[in-house]
Amino acid sequence: MSTTNGTDRPLILVSNDDGIEAPGILALTNALMPIGDCFVVAPSEEQSGASHAITIRHPVRAKSVSYQTEVGQIKGVSVKGTPVDCVKLAIDQFLPRKPDIVVSGINQGPNAAINTIYSGTVSAALEGAILGISAVAFSLNAWNGGDFDASQEYIRRIVKTVIANPLPPGVLLNVNIPDVSAEHIKGIKVTRQAESRWQESFEERIDPANRPYYWITGEFVNLDEGADTDLVALAEGWISMTPLRPDLTAHDMMQSLKDLSF
Amino acid sequence: MSTTNGTDRPLILVSNDDGIEAPGILALTNALMPIGDCFVVAPSEEQSGASHAITIRHPVRAKSVSYQTEVGQIKGVSVKGTPVDCVKLAIDQFLPRKPDIVVSGINQGPNAAINTIYSGTVSAALEGAILGISAVAFSLNAWNGGDFDASQEYIRRIVKTVIANPLPPGVLLNVNIPDVSAEHIKGIKVTRQAESRWQESFEERIDPANRPYYWITGEFVNLDEGADTDLVALAEGWISMTPLRPDLTAHDMMQSLKDLSF
Repeated sequence: MSTTNGTDRPLILVSNDDGIEAPGILALTNALMPIGDCFVVAPSEEQSGASHAITIRHPVRAKSVSYQTEVGQIKGVSVKGTPVDCVKLAIDQFLPRKPDIVVSGINQGPNAAINTIYSGTVSAALEGAILGISAVAFSLNAWNGGDFDASQEYIRRIVKTVIANPLPPGVLLNVNIPDVSAEHIKGIKVTRQAESRWQESFEERIDPANRPYYWITGEFVNLDEGADTDLVALAEGWISMTPLRPDLTAHDMMQSLKDLSF
Repeated sequence: MSTTNGTDRPLILVSNDDGIEAPGILALTNALMPIGDCFVVAPSEEQSGASHAITIRHPVRAKSVSYQTEVGQIKGVSVKGTPVDCVKLAIDQFLPRKPDIVVSGINQGPNAAINTIYSGTVSAALEGAILGISAVAFSLNAWNGGDFDASQEYIRRIVKTVIANPLPPGVLLNVNIPDVSAEHIKGIKVTRQAESRWQESFEERIDPANRPYYWITGEFVNLDEGADTDLVALAEGWISMTPLRPDLTAHDMMQSLKDLSF
């Protein structure tokens, strides 16, 4: 396998948004240690819903960590910051060289459809892509529990393929894994992000001092009837693989906007 | 002007990421009060770089505010949360009806190119679009100070045009304003988000207890030679207007990914 420093062992940066102690990041690291040198830089606390936030107004703290797993010693850094902070800091400060790939996950919960936008796990990989490094985000279609190890072979295959065939600059893969046993995963489908929204209905509560506070809740609404979406693939038992790019431009709208007289 | 409740005065939700006391949000509200009923729901503290983050792990606090300005009384809610929290809460809890438009800004600093992705100001408008409401983000091309009032006429014209011609569901406008006097603004150009990145170089400092901490710094790198980008328009003295949509899919990559054998 060719790597950016010409050695046989690729350097893999591993991050997530569920925090450095989450089961998903351990499963991802375990899956990838046989094929590369994994360096984990992840948030010290859960950062679900952090999206592409960065820490600007106060400094970020970081602490070296090292722990033994069933497949070997994991080295890394625990960061009191967002997933994007982790990737930026890792590449600028902590890694011995530019990594061959940035992987993020395995997220607890799907990051398909509009969840792509809110997800810190996707954004960790997105930041890798912005910095010109191939990147893949992995998420499991289970909001609680689930089998993080069933997709090990697929994860290794995807990461090996991407290292051998680097993605174009700025592109990353957003991979969502159905929560079924290994033999029931049908394979991989290339998909697009489904149109959808969370329809919010906040829960207002009153504290003992009689002041209100609000918990976010909500209902997921699929607005997309297409057959080629991440949601459809996942529901049918496929791994969905959506190529992403950090470009929100609605290119198809440019002409009609020019026609409007502002 | 037609509005969603059939009255003459449109309901305008105003938010930002610089915080409810920032000069930009006051300028934006002042600019729009002559053409609609403005309701301000914005973060109690600066949220620059908050991107599309939402608050999930702890509840959000909110406090009604009311203040007098040169053009009238402003009513609103100060929210201890992110810009996206503000828009979600406003629509679910605080507004008397669905707003005719969500506006965000005026941001201190440009939200062109890759800044689009990190910006909480853009994300406040993006959340409006996700919820099916026309939305516009405004940012001033000045990292400090600058003239927030020079673009008043343009802001009114853009907002009036969008209310009269609602954007397709999911689409918002990302408007960046050059920091020049009103008569030197050349007009409006429809643009796309330029490819770019922040090349980080964190500053490591050591605290009195001998522990390291990191401040984010960085250098902006334009990777785009196109003539139709937001960066080019701004640099030439035009207001850049980029249509956005909450879809990160790299549609042009789908076929080549299918050809790779994973």
